[in-house]
Amino acid sequence: MTLHWTRLAQDGNARRGVLHTAHGEVETPVFMPVGTAGTVKAMTADSVRATGARMVLGNTYHLMLRPGAERVGRLGGLHTMMDWHGPILTDSGGYQVMSLNELRQMDEGGVTFRSHLDGSKHRLTPERSIEIQRLLDADVTMCLDECTPFPATEEQAATSMRLSMRWAKRCRDAFVPREGYGLFGIVQGSTYPELRAESVAALSGIGFEGYAVGGLAVGEGQEMMFGVLDCTLPLMPTHAPRYLMGVGTPSDIVGAVRRGIDMFDCVIPTRSGRTGRAYTSRGMMNLRNAKHAEDKRPIDPDCACPACARHSRAYLHHLIKAEEMLGPMLLTWHNLQYYQDLTRGLRDAISAGRLDAHAAALEAAWAAGDAPPEDAAAAELAEDRETLR
Amino acid sequence: MTLHWTRLAQDGNARRGVLHTAHGEVETPVFMPVGTAGTVKAMTADSVRATGARMVLGNTYHLMLRPGAERVGRLGGLHTMMDWHGPILTDSGGYQVMSLNELRQMDEGGVTFRSHLDGSKHRLTPERSIEIQRLLDADVTMCLDECTPFPATEEQAATSMRLSMRWAKRCRDAFVPREGYGLFGIVQGSTYPELRAESVAALSGIGFEGYAVGGLAVGEGQEMMFGVLDCTLPLMPTHAPRYLMGVGTPSDIVGAVRRGIDMFDCVIPTRSGRTGRAYTSRGMMNLRNAKHAEDKRPIDPDCACPACARHSRAYLHHLIKAEEMLGPMLLTWHNLQYYQDLTRGLRDAISAGRLDAHAAALEAAWAAGDAPPEDAAAAELAEDRETLR
Repeated sequence: MTLHWTRLAQDGNARRGVLHTAHGEVETPVFMPVGTAGTVKAMTADSVRATGARMVLGNTYHLMLRPGAERVGRLGGLHTMMDWHGPILTDSGGYQVMSLNELRQMDEGGVTFRSHLDGSKHRLTPERSIEIQRLLDADVTMCLDECTPFPATEEQAATSMRLSMRWAKRCRDAFVPREGYGLFGIVQGSTYPELRAESVAALSGIGFEGYAVGGLAVGEGQEMMFGVLDCTLPLMPTHAPRYLMGVGTPSDIVGAVRRGIDMFDCVIPTRSGRTGRAYTSRGMMNLRNAKHAEDKRPIDPDCACPACARHSRAYLHHLIKAEEMLGPMLLTWHNLQYYQDLTRGLRDAISAGRLDAHAAALEAAWAAGDAPPEDAAAAELAEDRETLR
Repeated sequence: MTLHWTRLAQDGNARRGVLHTAHGEVETPVFMPVGTAGTVKAMTADSVRATGARMVLGNTYHLMLRPGAERVGRLGGLHTMMDWHGPILTDSGGYQVMSLNELRQMDEGGVTFRSHLDGSKHRLTPERSIEIQRLLDADVTMCLDECTPFPATEEQAATSMRLSMRWAKRCRDAFVPREGYGLFGIVQGSTYPELRAESVAALSGIGFEGYAVGGLAVGEGQEMMFGVLDCTLPLMPTHAPRYLMGVGTPSDIVGAVRRGIDMFDCVIPTRSGRTGRAYTSRGMMNLRNAKHAEDKRPIDPDCACPACARHSRAYLHHLIKAEEMLGPMLLTWHNLQYYQDLTRGLRDAISAGRLDAHAAALEAAWAAGDAPPEDAAAAELAEDRETLR
């Protein structure tokens, strides 16, 4: 049987379920830490697992350029190479080809670009993306698509989405079914409900093991993102997992789970950890801020991660100021732990039928805790949103 | 009782013993990882302990400037701040004042310098150095001395050494005896046997809980360093621990242990780990080298560290090339593990009375293993030596 998802519970539009993969089962809603180049930055595979994470993401674009997809294949695949024995989802490479390459050339067949590492020329087609992801041994393979820029006119969005749908069919044809492996289609259509509906219909017609909502977290803001989810999710197949790509902040995740999303990935917890920011049950704090310099309290008294269980805010402030690697290491661990605790809490709330109350309590604690949004927090949040991947 | 050392076994000039401190017992010969700014770079306190390390070093110079000695004191001392509950040795700050500050001003009373961080003016005297180390809560406090540059004329070396001896007396007077804490004197005298003898006599006359050999690992080379040890160690008190500051390579450590040194610290395992170099039972290797790109073997099949137990040379090569933080993290862990395994092996060999054979086997394996010195290894070793701290 290919990769599949079973529903355990439902609360409003929110679903709790289990994703069954070649490398084990994963409870949803799930947050997948981003392991761009074959490593979740600043974390060992053991420490990623210790946070409760059970599934990670790898970036096809980065891995195809270095160390190279064929090399990863010869090394036994991504699981073996990075010592991660749970499921792995890889993206198609398309997003980074577009965002990291100004000189890319798109055509009906695929996209030609130069490596940002050494200038070497590469071509990514739907068929090659699927082949690369097979070499990486991804449990979940993503269709190559064009991530429509924001904003886009309806005509631009339609043209882009329809190309992605033709590519989705080619990806489906190229994908070799294997026990526990699956291919996800990606809904595009920018902010236009009719285009989103057309995209969902096209993908449902082809048939995939899961469906992603793409083209979001590209600067449109939370309200517009939720608006797209509100008009798109009710149209999507209910039997398959739904994945919101590149999202998001804790608040984004709560809102998207309430609307029926099952899977998430985002660089926010890892990237913000590397820059001194900590997400907590009582809001987001910037450990670089001088007010933490002699604060003996843990970042988050409700967190069991090593940063919180063993160290003070003062020590973490010192590590960040001194640019010691341990600062990013501990804050990355903390943020990943927080994201895992957050999604586990959402799963439990769904099972208990009390997701609305749980979400309200989360939002209230973020706003009223002893680590309320700081002066710069709003700006940082905007920055986080803009640099989602 | 103040900090003290008891001898368990002797093999030739080499000694096995136990250092009794306020924060526990440590077997010697011991290698202390360097935790310059309140963290062993790229390692959590738990992972340092997991390598077998039981005692670490902190740098007074760095800590007095950031976060500041009084602040560390208010945070409960270095043990609490960095979550390291074993013994800690701190240096006096003198070495870095000299090496990191071109505009320092020495006088009989102490040394005045500007912070390399913000240009602020500071003064370090023997009394202030002792006070700072008390605030840091160091189990072993080091006397403030002048690390005589190499090379030095006999007159320069004599003048410098005698200043250090006057400062040693002032340090002894300033040090407040506490249960399990101790003060170490530092033998100077450059490469001049008569001056080394004069320095040992001066320090023995004052009386310390331990004696360090300073002014080495400053570019003089292994042969000259061993020569200084050969003429100095026989003069030193036998009841007290002997500490060779800032040394060294595995070969340096084996040679120094055979001559009667009990304690070591060095940045080589941590610093070389961050630049992609691994010390192994079969020689040193540079993981940056392209020949490792598809090598599925572990760095060292005889090593139990996570880098060796879980990953291939190929993966570590990839991490280093991709400048992923996990590369330095894993290689630092490996190198510290290797240094701990090395010193444990030396301790066991001393107990068994087979140190000569053990040392010969180590040297033979380094030379003949499957990771023999590479093209650049000699140059890198020289670089390691020159950047010891």
